[in-house]
Amino acid sequence: MLPATAPFAPSATSDSAQYCAARLGTIDAALERCLPREPDCPANLAAAMRHAVLSGGKRVRPLLAIMSCAACGGEEGDALAAACALELVHAYSLVHDDLPALDNDDLRRGQPTVHKAFDEATAILAGDALLTFAFELLAREISDPVSAAACILELSKAAGAAGMVGGQADDLAGLDDGEHRDDALARLETIHARKTGALFLASVRMGAIAARADDRARRAIDEYGRRIGLVFQIVDDILDLEQDIAQAASHAEAVAAAPSFPELLGLSDSQTYAQRLVVEACDALEPLGPRAERLRDLAHFLVQRTE
Amino acid sequence: MLPATAPFAPSATSDSAQYCAARLGTIDAALERCLPREPDCPANLAAAMRHAVLSGGKRVRPLLAIMSCAACGGEEGDALAAACALELVHAYSLVHDDLPALDNDDLRRGQPTVHKAFDEATAILAGDALLTFAFELLAREISDPVSAAACILELSKAAGAAGMVGGQADDLAGLDDGEHRDDALARLETIHARKTGALFLASVRMGAIAARADDRARRAIDEYGRRIGLVFQIVDDILDLEQDIAQAASHAEAVAAAPSFPELLGLSDSQTYAQRLVVEACDALEPLGPRAERLRDLAHFLVQRTE
Repeated sequence: MLPATAPFAPSATSDSAQYCAARLGTIDAALERCLPREPDCPANLAAAMRHAVLSGGKRVRPLLAIMSCAACGGEEGDALAAACALELVHAYSLVHDDLPALDNDDLRRGQPTVHKAFDEATAILAGDALLTFAFELLAREISDPVSAAACILELSKAAGAAGMVGGQADDLAGLDDGEHRDDALARLETIHARKTGALFLASVRMGAIAARADDRARRAIDEYGRRIGLVFQIVDDILDLEQDIAQAASHAEAVAAAPSFPELLGLSDSQTYAQRLVVEACDALEPLGPRAERLRDLAHFLVQRTE
Repeated sequence: MLPATAPFAPSATSDSAQYCAARLGTIDAALERCLPREPDCPANLAAAMRHAVLSGGKRVRPLLAIMSCAACGGEEGDALAAACALELVHAYSLVHDDLPALDNDDLRRGQPTVHKAFDEATAILAGDALLTFAFELLAREISDPVSAAACILELSKAAGAAGMVGGQADDLAGLDDGEHRDDALARLETIHARKTGALFLASVRMGAIAARADDRARRAIDEYGRRIGLVFQIVDDILDLEQDIAQAASHAEAVAAAPSFPELLGLSDSQTYAQRLVVEACDALEPLGPRAERLRDLAHFLVQRTE
């Protein structure tokens, strides 16, 4: 098992970094423990599921769930099942996205993708099994049925046709070349609100559900969650573009690759936009007081990240 | 939308056939109503999901859930969300099974499969969205959170790595050619217990959960459900073989195609075995009295079916 990568290399010695490193250890251990094994699960399928989940990753969604739970006054452990379910859904989405019919990627995080390490049929089935297992975990591990049903509703809406999978389908359709810049930007934000944003929002919401947060806290968490998902995507686009520029013959060639924030806003304005969203996200947490400090730190780390 | 096919052509004028036809209408209408639409869901994805679910099918799993609920003293309508969720999971499993990397089928029920009618990427995403939506439906539509969480646990276990997806993975691995007949038969039953049996068992169990059945009723329903799933698979194998014999040059060629009950037991003994399981399944319902009559009729219809 590769260790999870902390999303905040810039200040790895800070108190926040140490806090995150400890939580990442807890999350990885919980994921390792919960994944199915033989004889309950066929050996090859179990191995493919483990490859998908335990080959590194930033674990941003689980961290958001745990930090949101703490920010709403809950015990962090109460959000651990939600944290694991979120990572399982994220992992399944990567396995299916990497398939030849979709992004056709051979490598992820420097390792062979699941359909390369195993085969395409096993990758499809492993993705299906991970998605299904996320719901099993929530139904089995959350002892309060009201919280369990609420978390399952949140995760299924965020992951499904109106959320992440819908965003993937939008993405396949692409942006219309003749579209006005403002329309294109609005549509890009809609795609990302589905594709990345919905699961980020579900992460903080599931943390709030685990903490049995009141309406005021939930509204604050929602405002934060909506912005932080967009920040993550903008920074992803910027990092992708920087990598493409380093590899491509020209800046124009790199920009032409896919619809993205830097393509529509330019690199500098994209960075400014992400920074403004971080300020707004942190301001939204004001009603939660100092307990929300970890969420604020994470927002700053996410905009500064370099990988 | 094609109408669902009643699984009981032999006695289409009987009271049971009329009862089933009415329930099939209710199930199809509920599926039609619940599936996502624009603008919540991208148009192409919504169309692919509808194609997968509303292009016919026997609706055996939904009928089992509704009949089991009634047999346990519940209102049939209480099991409607469970019935729809079961069909969504069944539909997703067919979409993914039909993919080129798995069974590579171009037609299902005389219609193009989803990856043929749309494309492979859309078929993968539509399957993912249907699976996810099954859990959303249960979490949203079952008003009692205890029943909702119990149904979700049942469905996720049955559909996941220890159930249906695990059976698919077993199936990919196939049977060992050198295996002794008794060992091969035990392994075939294990594959089918996962691949088909788990979802059949979940169907009757979810009906019992919806009816808030007591332990005695649940045990009876379990005994019935375990056998009826196996009956369905044996009859499927027999019908497949009969079709293969009609098309293949020789009986030996047809039998060699895939591990199956007729291959291991012979055609006649497979039929006898299925009939014995039906008798046992019906006997198991004794504690439920006359309310279980529909389940008994369905068992008889399933062993007599010709398609």
